[in-house]
Amino acid sequence: MSELTIWTYDWVPAGPRGFVRDLRLRWACEEAGLPYVVRTVPFEGRETNHLARQPFGQVPFLTDGDLELFESGACLLHLAARSETLAPADPKGRAQVMQWTLAALNSLEMVTVPWWFLKICGDADNQLTGWMAQRLGQLEAVLCERDWLAAGRFTVADLLMADVLRVRDVRAFGQRPASEAYVARLTARPAFRKAQADQIAQFEAADAARAK
Amino acid sequence: MSELTIWTYDWVPAGPRGFVRDLRLRWACEEAGLPYVVRTVPFEGRETNHLARQPFGQVPFLTDGDLELFESGACLLHLAARSETLAPADPKGRAQVMQWTLAALNSLEMVTVPWWFLKICGDADNQLTGWMAQRLGQLEAVLCERDWLAAGRFTVADLLMADVLRVRDVRAFGQRPASEAYVARLTARPAFRKAQADQIAQFEAADAARAK
Repeated sequence: MSELTIWTYDWVPAGPRGFVRDLRLRWACEEAGLPYVVRTVPFEGRETNHLARQPFGQVPFLTDGDLELFESGACLLHLAARSETLAPADPKGRAQVMQWTLAALNSLEMVTVPWWFLKICGDADNQLTGWMAQRLGQLEAVLCERDWLAAGRFTVADLLMADVLRVRDVRAFGQRPASEAYVARLTARPAFRKAQADQIAQFEAADAARAK
Repeated sequence: MSELTIWTYDWVPAGPRGFVRDLRLRWACEEAGLPYVVRTVPFEGRETNHLARQPFGQVPFLTDGDLELFESGACLLHLAARSETLAPADPKGRAQVMQWTLAALNSLEMVTVPWWFLKICGDADNQLTGWMAQRLGQLEAVLCERDWLAAGRFTVADLLMADVLRVRDVRAFGQRPASEAYVARLTARPAFRKAQADQIAQFEAADAARAK
């Protein structure tokens, strides 16, 4: 197997630490026992300094041998194809994982991220709030019925959905006990805890290097 | 091969005709020469009447034999696995198709759809406008450099990106000549024209049935 490299920023401010999306890839690799290294691109100048590798100036991206891949969802589906821990091998199970991975990104995050963006711009009671309540309510109904989104077991779709839902302001939005239990259960997994601790430690080490 | 069924609403108002997302699946099947039928669920009561099959009350969803799949992006990736017209078979080409399919959904549409939603709520100069200009500008830079997003040829990633960009208000936003040429070129394809005409004809037939 070729070596996996997860690319992230060399530093970020305190706010997003523990939430930068390289965590999704670290978490998946930790779950699957896939060895990986983490490398960085500069945070300063991120809008333009790595567009050749990520045309939107974002992180993460993933190197797997001579293959380079961006978009955290695409990277997760790529990793899932390397490990049955992340997705079952049968066509029906894989299809369920794909649909719920896409649902996390295009039915939930498409509302939660812009809602959050408007909120931090100072518009807490913004016009996306009703739409967000509807989508989170629909997901709550699903999570009232079952523990896992796809294939009756933990998959990369749960990893991604939990990462979408665990954003502080989203998690604090409304009363959704099944969703809250789901997020608590997913983020208690040792692989998540290690991934999050490693990300935070990396950025703290960057602070120390800057202070010298 | 099993039979493909694309599910959509039995009727929609005039505004979204030609833009309902079942068009993405019709278009992909037309490009690939995959036979399909179209079936419907009621538009009235859509918030609750088909949640067992689509937990967010949306369309489309796809039936492929005994496999049922929702999320248009997931359906497109599923169809792409059935036809090399939609995505090349080599791992590098497939990875590029996956990353650009996800980019269309999670880097572009995650901004364009909420921006459009705020605009139709009456807030045309909303706080997502700068973010939207940035993302569309970054994509414009990519499309200035090449004709196709992935693998040097038409793929399902172009089909999806063009469908995201062709929304009237998005297409009219700013001056982006490479993106405009891209959308014009993609929507001139016979497969798109047939898919769009078929969708519009279906909803017009539903008008006629209602009027009886």
